[in-house]
Order: sequence, then structure tokens, then C-alpha cells
Amino acid sequence: MKQIELSIKNALGTVSKSDVDALKPVAQQSLAKLTDGSGLGNDFLGWVKLPSETPSSLLDDINATAASLRENCDTVVVIGIGGSYLGAKAVIEALSDSFAAYRHDAAPHVLFAGQNIGEDYLYELSDYLKDKKFGIIVISKSGTTTEPAIAFRLLKEQLEHQLGRQEASKRIVAITDAKRGALRSLADQEGYKTYVIADNVGGRFSVLTPVGLLPIAVAGFDIHALIEGAAAFEQATLTGANDMATLYAQTRNALYRAGKKTEILVNYNPKLHYFGEWWKQLYGESEGKDHKGIFPAAVDNSTDLHSMGQWIQDGERTIFETVLSVVDQKHELRIGHDEANLDGLNFLAGKRVDEVNKMAELGTVLAHVDGGVPNIHIIIPALTELYLGQLIYFFEAACGISGYILDVNPFNQPGVEAYKKNMFALLEKPGYEAETEAIKKRI
Amino acid sequence: MKQIELSIKNALGTVSKSDVDALKPVAQQSLAKLTDGSGLGNDFLGWVKLPSETPSSLLDDINATAASLRENCDTVVVIGIGGSYLGAKAVIEALSDSFAAYRHDAAPHVLFAGQNIGEDYLYELSDYLKDKKFGIIVISKSGTTTEPAIAFRLLKEQLEHQLGRQEASKRIVAITDAKRGALRSLADQEGYKTYVIADNVGGRFSVLTPVGLLPIAVAGFDIHALIEGAAAFEQATLTGANDMATLYAQTRNALYRAGKKTEILVNYNPKLHYFGEWWKQLYGESEGKDHKGIFPAAVDNSTDLHSMGQWIQDGERTIFETVLSVVDQKHELRIGHDEANLDGLNFLAGKRVDEVNKMAELGTVLAHVDGGVPNIHIIIPALTELYLGQLIYFFEAACGISGYILDVNPFNQPGVEAYKKNMFALLEKPGYEAETEAIKKRI
Repeated sequence: MKQIELSIKNALGTVSKSDVDALKPVAQQSLAKLTDGSGLGNDFLGWVKLPSETPSSLLDDINATAASLRENCDTVVVIGIGGSYLGAKAVIEALSDSFAAYRHDAAPHVLFAGQNIGEDYLYELSDYLKDKKFGIIVISKSGTTTEPAIAFRLLKEQLEHQLGRQEASKRIVAITDAKRGALRSLADQEGYKTYVIADNVGGRFSVLTPVGLLPIAVAGFDIHALIEGAAAFEQATLTGANDMATLYAQTRNALYRAGKKTEILVNYNPKLHYFGEWWKQLYGESEGKDHKGIFPAAVDNSTDLHSMGQWIQDGERTIFETVLSVVDQKHELRIGHDEANLDGLNFLAGKRVDEVNKMAELGTVLAHVDGGVPNIHIIIPALTELYLGQLIYFFEAACGISGYILDVNPFNQPGVEAYKKNMFALLEKPGYEAETEAIKKRI
Repeated sequence: MKQIELSIKNALGTVSKSDVDALKPVAQQSLAKLTDGSGLGNDFLGWVKLPSETPSSLLDDINATAASLRENCDTVVVIGIGGSYLGAKAVIEALSDSFAAYRHDAAPHVLFAGQNIGEDYLYELSDYLKDKKFGIIVISKSGTTTEPAIAFRLLKEQLEHQLGRQEASKRIVAITDAKRGALRSLADQEGYKTYVIADNVGGRFSVLTPVGLLPIAVAGFDIHALIEGAAAFEQATLTGANDMATLYAQTRNALYRAGKKTEILVNYNPKLHYFGEWWKQLYGESEGKDHKGIFPAAVDNSTDLHSMGQWIQDGERTIFETVLSVVDQKHELRIGHDEANLDGLNFLAGKRVDEVNKMAELGTVLAHVDGGVPNIHIIIPALTELYLGQLIYFFEAACGISGYILDVNPFNQPGVEAYKKNMFALLEKPGYEAETEAIKKRI
């Protein structure tokens, strides 16, 4: 099996090899904590051995559910927020045709809802679905998270109205707690097909559970290969055969300690845009606490060389980049010859478009390194399920290790509650009477 | 006419009102430089009085061209990068139905190309267009910028193949230099309809020129209202009747001097996602130079409260936020009552979805300010052409002023050349022989 690879060569200007090596012991201790459960947040380590412990029968069951939705629906709406949205979105976008939204000839369209509280977004979604054969995958541990709960209340009613309650119940799949909560109760009552969100896997580490796998399967992609890639990388990481995760964690922490406070995840393939969004949640939510943590940002090049490129080249020298290179493209397209050559492009005639893209990438890396921006390099053989599985596990493992090096609990997110508490107080939610009174005095 | 508004009340924790006021003289001098042309980059001030000086006849002409493309095409591909992409994309997304891509019943789809060098992206675009009646708007001052030149060479050939050269020439519009350059020569030779990119308007300030206006008109939106809103804001800004632009520039510079190195543009409406991308180019490319400048980032809430929210609440205290609030939504959608109330949402029954969104926003502002994140607030009456025109001019004027306060040339982008030079050397472009030899020794 080919593998994703890591090079830190172009990061070794600001920090030295020995700065990075100095963090090796703590990185290895951190890795050990992930497997022996002796670190902070150890009740959320279910993701560590998840790929290798995922039974093939679960994947087959998910595929059967996906096949039923694909057969009966032209549109499937995935309702979820945060980790119940970004993982599936990232993998689906990475594997899909760039213009899948505009095509009506293939798999069902997978749309998302409950990831915002946009009134126009929900209205327009509901309007769009009026004459569609749609299904719903609703993802919520509790069933009461505001954003997905609002979207589900609306779309469930619409589906029941369009199909009748009994038919609707066959087109709704709930991914929720095994036993407790509002969504579990409803699913049991209505007879929805369900999958379980384990207690020990946090949202941002859940893409390889049914949370990510069912939407990915509905979109037509191979979840066996995704898990296979992740499982192989899990084995290699946990046995020490592959040190990419520790090395990446060491390098980014060494850079952070040297004053590089912002990490920009860079891609040269627009299909990786949402992978950047998934990565921002994974690292931002895991590390941004106790008034520390690298600020995660992302750019899509060469597009953003013409927007953020100037800042990256010449702005404050407080950033580093982690570049995702995809070696093989899916299609082949060569630049044609043009007799008149007014655009002066004939020197590229006969070359693949990707050759130009690769030179843009290499030229940019050299320019940024020259300009004082350390570059970490991650090489992905191709955008396939197998390599995405490897990449996901790599980033998850490195994130846990990196958080422990930073000395935070990488598996909680206490700060996310702050806005919710205020919002409930402002909305006068029952049980928030004291908070309501207090907040009303402030505004 | 209602207007966009600005409040800096929630930014006055880290910096005081007098810190902000202390920058008023330099901000007003900077504004004066924009009108009297005495500052750096004064050969690129064509945007300053552009809205009020745009003849109605030009808008009518653009609308006529747009009408012809709308009549003859089901898809219009806009080819451009940077400012020749982001402005149009931002306005079109802000005004469009959230699911416009999936609908086939309305205006032509406006797609973009030449904003990347993705081989799969271009291949899949070309494949998608095989059976489409498509047109092209190609935007390039020189006609030789690599990304758009590659895309145009490909799609022009395809269109000529599908329609014949003569018919194709009627469905191609070129926006380019008045006299010089490859695209001007080709357009004159083939008889394309053309519009001019003025010499004194840089790409990131070009959305209110034909560069942005033609794609926006093709998408079906009112460019007269867009210009009207911008012109009114121009008048109010230049006469001093409205001090939003100077005040925003003062406040963000005061925060930057106080160690707030990253500005996050926040929206609570997913339609503003690309407005954030446009803003990132405008500010990042204008200010990120001489090893200084605020790092521009953007989030879409409440989506990103479940990804970047943790970092913003509890990470390093080196950030501030600028929040875009949209007062009125286009549609009305109320949360229904549910007898069983398993999700516990009945306390919201009868409320508009936007009321919940507004409380999420207010709750977040309070939580972030409490957490040490200063907040600037921009209030937009509604997402209409008129208010977007105001908002665009506001951000452009404030950007010029802010760059002068920072003591950089806000109108150049020398750093964008660095990667291009390397790329041409790596691709052995004629004229780069010495650079090719040098760079090959490095890799």
C-alpha cells in the first residue's frame, strides 16, 4: 500500500532539527497516553483504536442503509453541526465531481442543514425540497442541540406532510446516543433506523464512525476503503512503525514555541477546501484553550495566492504553512497548442495542467520559505478513500499528541458552552430564569 | 435611504475611546490623501470616485450584454482570479437562493474558472459543459495571467468546437485593457464584445467596475442599485457626513497596536461566506507587507461556533472580531409547535428562526467580549444590492485609510510576484533562462 508522507525539511529554518528532536520524548509519552489512557480527557479516546476495531458487518449495514436511501431519494439532507457535519462534508467534497451540485444524473445530492440558524437558508431548503423525494440523516447525541433540532423539527414535519408519517419514518435515519436523549426516544417511537454515537468519541473525532460513514456511503463512496486506510495508519502509528504523527506534532509545537502562532493549511486542489474546514475544527477546538494554542487558518491555492498570498509572503513573520500535495489527479487534461499564441502559453503546450499546478506549488513553497515562512509538507498519493482514511487518522493522532505536548486537554471544548448559555438566557429557555434576568440587565 | 451602521462599543475594553480618537487626525489625513492623490500608490485611486462617476449608460450597456448572455446561455463561465473573481462571487452568493446551484429553473448558472490550476476542476468543468449552451466572460488586464489564460485557452477552443468560431465569438465577452495586451488583441480580432479595465483601479477594488458588474448582472441582480448604494456612501464618506470608514480604520489600527494581530470577520448568514473571502483579499493584500499588517480571517456562524468557537473563546488573546449583522431576512419561517416536545424546543414555538439566530449572535458577542475578544459591529439593514453597494464602498474606503495609517502602500502587491517568478522559472518560460538555471540548482 502506498502511503501519505511527511517532510519537515522546509520548516527547518526557524527551528532546527534538534529543536524538533528535543520534543520527541514528550511526543512519544503523549502517544503512549493515547493508548494507555493516562492523559487528560481519557474518557474520549474511543477514536484511537476505532478503525481497526470497526467490524466489517457495521460497514455492510451502513452500506445497506445507504443503498436504500439512494434508491428512494433524489436528495438526502444530513442534519448536524460541528463534527456531525464537517467530516462527512470534507470527505464527500474531496471525492466528488467539482460540479456535482449542478448535475442531476448521478447519486442523490447530499445537502446539509442544522449547521446554521439561517432563516433564509432553511426557508430556501424547505422550498427546494417541496417537490423532491428526500430523506434525512439526523445526527445528534442529545437531540436537543439548538441548530440541528430546529432543522429536524422543520424537515421532519415537511417529510411527514409530503409522504405520510409511516413512509417518512422509513426515510429518516437517526445517529444518536445508544440509550438516552430526545432523539433516541423519538427514533425508538417512530421506528427509525438508528446508529450509535459512542460515549467515548467526541464530535470532531467522529468522521470514521457512522456519523461520517453513512453520509459518505450515501454519496456513493467506499467506506470499507476509508476505514482500511485509517486502520493501516492506526497500526503503523501505534506500533511506532510510522512516526509521522509524532513528528508533525513535534514540529508544529517547536514552531509555535518559536513564535509562529498561526498555522495555515494549504491545498492546491479545490476539492480539499472542506478538508481544511474539518482540520480547523479538529485543531482549533482541541488546542485553543487556556489562552494558548496555534490559530488554525486555511487557504486554497492557487486561488488564494491572489488574495492571502501577499500577506503570507510579506506580512508579520508569525505564521507557518502545512501544505497538502496531491500527487496523482483523477483525470488527464493537456494544454493545447494555439497557432496565434497571443496569450504566450505555447511554452506550456502539451503539458498537463497539473504540471503547471505543481510548479505553482513548488514555486510558492520556495518563495514563502525565502520570505520567512516555514513549510511542512504532506504528500498524498491521490484523493481516494484509502488515502483520505490515512490522512484523517494521521491528523487525529497528531492532534491528540500535539494537545498533550501543549499541556491542554485536547478532548474537551468548554468554551463552546459560553455562547449557548447566553443564547438560552436571551431566549428565556425554561431553567435559565436567573441567567435571563442577569443578561437582560446587560443589554 | 436606510444605511449600514457601525458600532465600536464592544471594542472599547482593550483600547479606550481616547486610543481610537487619537488616530482621528491621521485617519482624516489619510482620507484626504485618497481624494487629493498625495499618498502612496496614488496611480491606483480610480475606485475612489468611481461609483458617482459611473454613467448610467454604462450600466445599461452591461445589462444589455447580460440580457443577451441570459437569453442564449444556460451557463456562463466567468474566467478570472483574485479581484477578477472574488467580488462578483461575493455579491452573487449574497443575493442568490442558497440552493441555486441545484435548481435548473431560473437564471443561467454562473460558474467560475481560471481561479485555480486544478486539472480535475478544469477537466470536470469541460466535461460538464459538453452538452451545455454556455458563454464566457473572460477577465484579465493582460490576457497572460497563467490561471485564467489556461482556462480561457481550453474553454474558448471547446466553445468554438461546439458552436463554430463565429457563433462562439458572440458568446464571449472580454473585460481587459483598453488598448494593450493579448486579450485586447484577440478580442479585437475576433469581434468580442469588450469592457475596459481602467489603469487606475486595482483588481481587489474592481467589483464595481464591469469586472464585477457584468457577472452580477448575468446572475440577475440590479447593478443600478448596487452602484447607487456605493455612490451614496461615497458622497457621505468623502464629504465627511459619514465617518464610518475612518472610525473603522482607527479602531482596527488601535487594536492592532494593542497586540490584536488577527481580525476575524464574522457573519451569521451563510450567504456572506464569499463576502468574507472578498474582504480577506481586500485587507490582506492591501496591508500585509513590510512584515506588518493585521492577519485577516473569517468565520461563518453559528456553523463555526462549533469549530473555531472554542479557539476564539479561550485561545490566545491576540484577536478581535468584526461582526456583520443582517437585520432583515428575505423570507419568514417560524418554528412549529410539537405536541410531544421531545426535543424541548416548544419554548421557541412561534418564533422566527432569525430570532434564535439573533440571540445566538448577541449571546456570542457577549461571551467573546467577556472572554477578552473586542468586537466591532457592522449592521446591514438587509442583503440587497443597495446595502451591498454601501458595504463594498465602506470597506474599500476604510481599507485605503487603514493602509495609510499603517504606513504601507495599500494599492500594490509586490509579494504576489514572488511565486510567479519561481513558477515561470520552473516551467522554463522563455525569458526566464537565468532564473531557470538558478532555481534548478536549488531543488
